[in-house]
Amino acid sequence: MNLVPTSFEAFRSRAEALDAADPLRGRRALFHVPAGLRYLDGNSLGMLPKAVAARVRAVIETEWGEGLIRSWNTHGWIDLPARVAAKIERLVGAEPNSITVADSTSVNVFKAVSAALRLRPGRRTILSDSGNFPTDLYVAHGLTELLGGGLALEVVEPDAVEAAIGDDLAALLLTEVDYRTGRRHDMRRLTGRAHAAGGLAVWDLAHSAGAIPVALAAADADFAVGCGYKYLNGGPGAPAFVYVAPRLAADIDPALCGWMGHAAPFAFDLGYTPAPGIGRMRVGTPSVIAMAALDAALDAFDGVDMAVVQAKSATLCELFIAAVADGCPQLELVTNRDHRRRGSQVSFRCAEGYAVMQALIERGVIGDFRAPDFIRFGFTPLYTSHADVAAAASVLAEIMRKRLWDQAKYRARSKVT
Amino acid sequence: MNLVPTSFEAFRSRAEALDAADPLRGRRALFHVPAGLRYLDGNSLGMLPKAVAARVRAVIETEWGEGLIRSWNTHGWIDLPARVAAKIERLVGAEPNSITVADSTSVNVFKAVSAALRLRPGRRTILSDSGNFPTDLYVAHGLTELLGGGLALEVVEPDAVEAAIGDDLAALLLTEVDYRTGRRHDMRRLTGRAHAAGGLAVWDLAHSAGAIPVALAAADADFAVGCGYKYLNGGPGAPAFVYVAPRLAADIDPALCGWMGHAAPFAFDLGYTPAPGIGRMRVGTPSVIAMAALDAALDAFDGVDMAVVQAKSATLCELFIAAVADGCPQLELVTNRDHRRRGSQVSFRCAEGYAVMQALIERGVIGDFRAPDFIRFGFTPLYTSHADVAAAASVLAEIMRKRLWDQAKYRARSKVT
Repeated sequence: MNLVPTSFEAFRSRAEALDAADPLRGRRALFHVPAGLRYLDGNSLGMLPKAVAARVRAVIETEWGEGLIRSWNTHGWIDLPARVAAKIERLVGAEPNSITVADSTSVNVFKAVSAALRLRPGRRTILSDSGNFPTDLYVAHGLTELLGGGLALEVVEPDAVEAAIGDDLAALLLTEVDYRTGRRHDMRRLTGRAHAAGGLAVWDLAHSAGAIPVALAAADADFAVGCGYKYLNGGPGAPAFVYVAPRLAADIDPALCGWMGHAAPFAFDLGYTPAPGIGRMRVGTPSVIAMAALDAALDAFDGVDMAVVQAKSATLCELFIAAVADGCPQLELVTNRDHRRRGSQVSFRCAEGYAVMQALIERGVIGDFRAPDFIRFGFTPLYTSHADVAAAASVLAEIMRKRLWDQAKYRARSKVT
Repeated sequence: MNLVPTSFEAFRSRAEALDAADPLRGRRALFHVPAGLRYLDGNSLGMLPKAVAARVRAVIETEWGEGLIRSWNTHGWIDLPARVAAKIERLVGAEPNSITVADSTSVNVFKAVSAALRLRPGRRTILSDSGNFPTDLYVAHGLTELLGGGLALEVVEPDAVEAAIGDDLAALLLTEVDYRTGRRHDMRRLTGRAHAAGGLAVWDLAHSAGAIPVALAAADADFAVGCGYKYLNGGPGAPAFVYVAPRLAADIDPALCGWMGHAAPFAFDLGYTPAPGIGRMRVGTPSVIAMAALDAALDAFDGVDMAVVQAKSATLCELFIAAVADGCPQLELVTNRDHRRRGSQVSFRCAEGYAVMQALIERGVIGDFRAPDFIRFGFTPLYTSHADVAAAASVLAEIMRKRLWDQAKYRARSKVT
């Protein structure tokens, strides 16, 4: 019995042709690809770059084990965040020395939004949208509660953001690519609207950095934050990053004043003097092990043109959309068909999405379920192949056609969904 | 020519006898001890526990590399911070589920002090001392600037803290053990004074946790923070921890509201509902690699009684004080001779301290210089031997007697001192 509809042979052939012509095909070998897995969840946790294990082993056994405290100098631990930042700056179109790598994305949202609010005293609105990742909203909410004074978080639908920008805007806080739907905001346009209203724009690049070209400087963005463990492949809970436009950096009063952000950390002054520029967005001592893992991971981007990454993202997404439309007509596509208006993911609404995703995972296709009813598939152009995409669509079609998701074992929720 | 004064033979013999009788002597084998090194800087960066390398390799190659996103469930990443916290709770006399492991010490100071201020609205004084580690003061200063309303940070000499506690006290913010001098505050007494004045007490255990017995619950402490990379040996920049007394936890309004502190992180609610209890002090996604390293490191404390740790700390410190007094009469001891009033370190004032420490390091004795003129030596009872201590004192004596520090190469400052 042939379980695969004939048309999938056509998608498979198309995938083979696309992979053969893929200028990034050599990059896949830089990653550890588990046997038999079609991993379409790099937007939740990127795959392991092979270089990481050896680098971390050297940090632990040689730099820490043998060098001990001396390694802050002799192995350059003290400059490591800046070296990692330089690699990220290139990927997101940021100026030199405009990014620091530190802390979690959430903590960096706090730094950025609090700094924006202090640059716009008297203004009382933080504007965001319902497509933002919840932690950004929680952080902003927490700031309104902490600071009081009538400060309020306004959350509108993604399409209503532009119209909601008003004269009381202090900070526009948006995630460029919606973690559920993949919808991409127009960063340049919305930043311009925020500026025209007298406010500042804070962009969360969690689902952009490393996936699509980002042009922070060209878009005139004021602040940005991003995640180290999605498309940058830095490992679970990797350090995040924060961007401050160089024209603003010297005017920032950090809310989180820590010794690593001091102008002279090892002078041990009792009084706080912020470091010049972006350095003041550092707070405490970063994990050197985690930072080194991210540093090694980013080398997978060496020499990679983000326009080429986006072009491959487009063909990966388009192939998946077409194959799923063919094999699963009951699934509602929620991602924009125009690749300029989406990140590197494709999502569908699916009432039984949780169970469907569990059935997929059991068959070696890993995507993500996101409440209430989204199934999403992330495509990381550095390691995802068109063959992965065609095979995943084929498995999904079989699950939907045979209602394989309709079993109790797929409906039982685990702690992390 | 015999470079070692005869009396050092006596100290060396005494050290041998103490090591032979040391109930912790077997623990040293759990650590990687570089050949030829006398490492007395575990209060800056603890030595590498041998178990860490294998654990981190498994996290990277198996859990991340093979398990990928599934490992949040299958390898228990989601519960890892709580498991690590439980190990720390025992070491610092904290109640079950009163600690979370997350972020840096500086960020945790921010969480604790901001929470204390919100529990004492209207009170305007954060009281600290000049022996506090500067980052604590920077964080507190940053909060006064952020929140305004007349909030002020008052910094007094360590001996003047008790007298400075007044009716306007919101939060007493002290590091129990002074990072320069080793002086230990009386946590129970000062907490009681703070409470009597209507305020709350926040304790920084950076130089206490893992070095000496701490009794947070017995001292009625309100908040505490601590460092993972000093006496806990979690590696450079290891995750830090924050303690909230269980009687307060449900009333805390977190200033840093992130998704990992939400009651249901994976529900992706747009509104923030804090987790019950200590969980609300989490913010963003922690580094799993760094957390696993700390987890493995803490196993070196399995079955260790902190009273035994303190008893060994006492003999280590006393031997060093006696040997240095004998060999370096020009050095001024600044650490209390009563072991109950100090941490696990011994410090001296030394006008040429920076150069002296460089000369020591070149000869394989690693301590720390701290501005303006302190040389300090930390003793980690799990791995420091009395033989280390006697040998280090001997090298220091030779450097002082022969003025070996008086060379240009020892005076040139590096980035990290």
